[in-house]
Amino acid sequence: VESPVAPIRILPGLGIDVLDQTRLPQAEVRLRLTTVEGACESIAALRVRGAPLLGIVGAATLAVAATELGSAERVLRDAAARISATRPTAVDLGKVTTQALSVALAVPEGPARTARLWANAEAVLARQFEADRALSAFGAPLIGAGAAVLTHCNTGALATGGYGTALGVIRAAFEDRRLVRCYATETRPLLQGARLTMWELARAGIAATLLPDTAAAALIASGTVDAVIVGADRIAANGDTANKVGTYGLALAAARHGVPFYIAAPLTTFDPATRHGAAIPIEFRAASEVGGFAGQRWTPDGADSYNPAFDVTPTDLITAFITERGILRPPFSAAIARTLAAEAVDAGRAAAEVS
Amino acid sequence: VESPVAPIRILPGLGIDVLDQTRLPQAEVRLRLTTVEGACESIAALRVRGAPLLGIVGAATLAVAATELGSAERVLRDAAARISATRPTAVDLGKVTTQALSVALAVPEGPARTARLWANAEAVLARQFEADRALSAFGAPLIGAGAAVLTHCNTGALATGGYGTALGVIRAAFEDRRLVRCYATETRPLLQGARLTMWELARAGIAATLLPDTAAAALIASGTVDAVIVGADRIAANGDTANKVGTYGLALAAARHGVPFYIAAPLTTFDPATRHGAAIPIEFRAASEVGGFAGQRWTPDGADSYNPAFDVTPTDLITAFITERGILRPPFSAAIARTLAAEAVDAGRAAAEVS
Repeated sequence: VESPVAPIRILPGLGIDVLDQTRLPQAEVRLRLTTVEGACESIAALRVRGAPLLGIVGAATLAVAATELGSAERVLRDAAARISATRPTAVDLGKVTTQALSVALAVPEGPARTARLWANAEAVLARQFEADRALSAFGAPLIGAGAAVLTHCNTGALATGGYGTALGVIRAAFEDRRLVRCYATETRPLLQGARLTMWELARAGIAATLLPDTAAAALIASGTVDAVIVGADRIAANGDTANKVGTYGLALAAARHGVPFYIAAPLTTFDPATRHGAAIPIEFRAASEVGGFAGQRWTPDGADSYNPAFDVTPTDLITAFITERGILRPPFSAAIARTLAAEAVDAGRAAAEVS
Repeated sequence: VESPVAPIRILPGLGIDVLDQTRLPQAEVRLRLTTVEGACESIAALRVRGAPLLGIVGAATLAVAATELGSAERVLRDAAARISATRPTAVDLGKVTTQALSVALAVPEGPARTARLWANAEAVLARQFEADRALSAFGAPLIGAGAAVLTHCNTGALATGGYGTALGVIRAAFEDRRLVRCYATETRPLLQGARLTMWELARAGIAATLLPDTAAAALIASGTVDAVIVGADRIAANGDTANKVGTYGLALAAARHGVPFYIAAPLTTFDPATRHGAAIPIEFRAASEVGGFAGQRWTPDGADSYNPAFDVTPTDLITAFITERGILRPPFSAAIARTLAAEAVDAGRAAAEVS
């Protein structure tokens, strides 16, 4: 089973084949990564991006390291540290790379350890696809027959390496012949909607309409949209949700007009240690991203900017969470705690069966 | 008295001197318009833009016509029709040009009629400046000491030819040493905030911060902004307000966080014949404006777009209207009707004194 747009392919013993996302949508350029150096360059330059996809790339790059540099523990530890440091704010990258290192060190040094790393990378990719598919299958029935939905940023196969989260739900509802159109915001400042989501929707044959972020409230007010579905970067214990900046504004407009507002996110995105949205740290990004794009500048030089990467949507504006274990409805604190506890029990049982 | 940024200067008997707004902020290029042909090209190419400024340009271009082509009634009627047709949706352009024609035809053909047209153009510009100044003086006290405000699009001297509406209030509050910072949205798709408002604020020495439209709700939620002030394109009898797309989203966020939301607009913007927002016709613009800018494309070719130029903010989200006759507070239907009636009485009295 392969992702609909194959942002990554694992070539065991050879390298990693990735789609260069910085060239989309103008060109579909694939790169063969066969060195740690080259893979880290691709991560740093955002040729691969999206938290779940970065996790897969991290696991695969550690396999590349073993093939390129040998499977000695010191070599792999150095490589894992280097990979994780390439984008320190991307939690999945460090977490999945560290897991890959543990898996490798349980096997004796040599060809078996290298083979284990490649098998692990393939397994990480396969699990992502399965989790996205399960989440999408739970979410698709929320989309009514003939429905149009609005989404924000890119939550597709390009971001997860699998099938997508919010865009996975949209794909599944389209495959079920219920969804008839997807509206996508441009998503300033980095334009992931205009560049990536529109490209994925076109590839999937889904009727798509692009709008400036400014037009989202007017679109929702017009009655054209039956649901808003977005992803998440971190969900607090009470359901407050950090996601790509602009999400909160969509939630306010949806609430005003009685349009359901869904968050599609895997359980790894829930953070029970964070009690509420005010405790979620928000990354601020460079002023140069605002007032221009791709080297073109629209604004007087040296202008000050306000450029948070994320905003927080309060729990009361969210209709439901779509996860790989089903749909969570209010009251969210209880639903989240119950679901995470069930997941932990199952994970413990699976671990006991393996050992 | 001259506009702070002088988007237009009337040169009686010679022509019109305008700032080419399409070259901002990279270059401050002034053009001397001495033919009807040249003036219409500048209007069509958006070198001059903003409804009130277009009215002034229309009146001045009819004076250019008399100087260039002679003041015969037929010549002026043809010129007025051509000017008005250059941007048919801009109400002020046609209205003020037609008024200029009436003024001219009350004077015998010849040098006196031509001189009358130049004097009329100067008077139109002076009246705009006075109306903007009055509106700004009423609005400035609404801004508290040390306050930061958020605005949208461009409502400055560049748009009115005078002192500005919402940006006029901001200028006046800054001159009163109360306003400390102005936040400006980029205002996709045409980026009037990034290109024009940031330029005007820098020229005025006002501390300014640019944000992506997506970040406005986060900014308002952060408690940094003490008021939102925007302009208007048409205000219905009940107070529902059409303005640059994106305004409605700002109003929803302001209401959620208890931040005052002000509309600054001259009384000519109020349309008592339109009962409510649903009756306001909304202009939709070209798909090519979305997914790119200035020849650069970010989106797959041929993408469908949703691109309304305006949205409608419902009256219940508006704290007050700032006009040249003072501040209008809820209930708005009564306040608007009372203010327009008083304006009509004064206008009738002024006309009676002249005749």
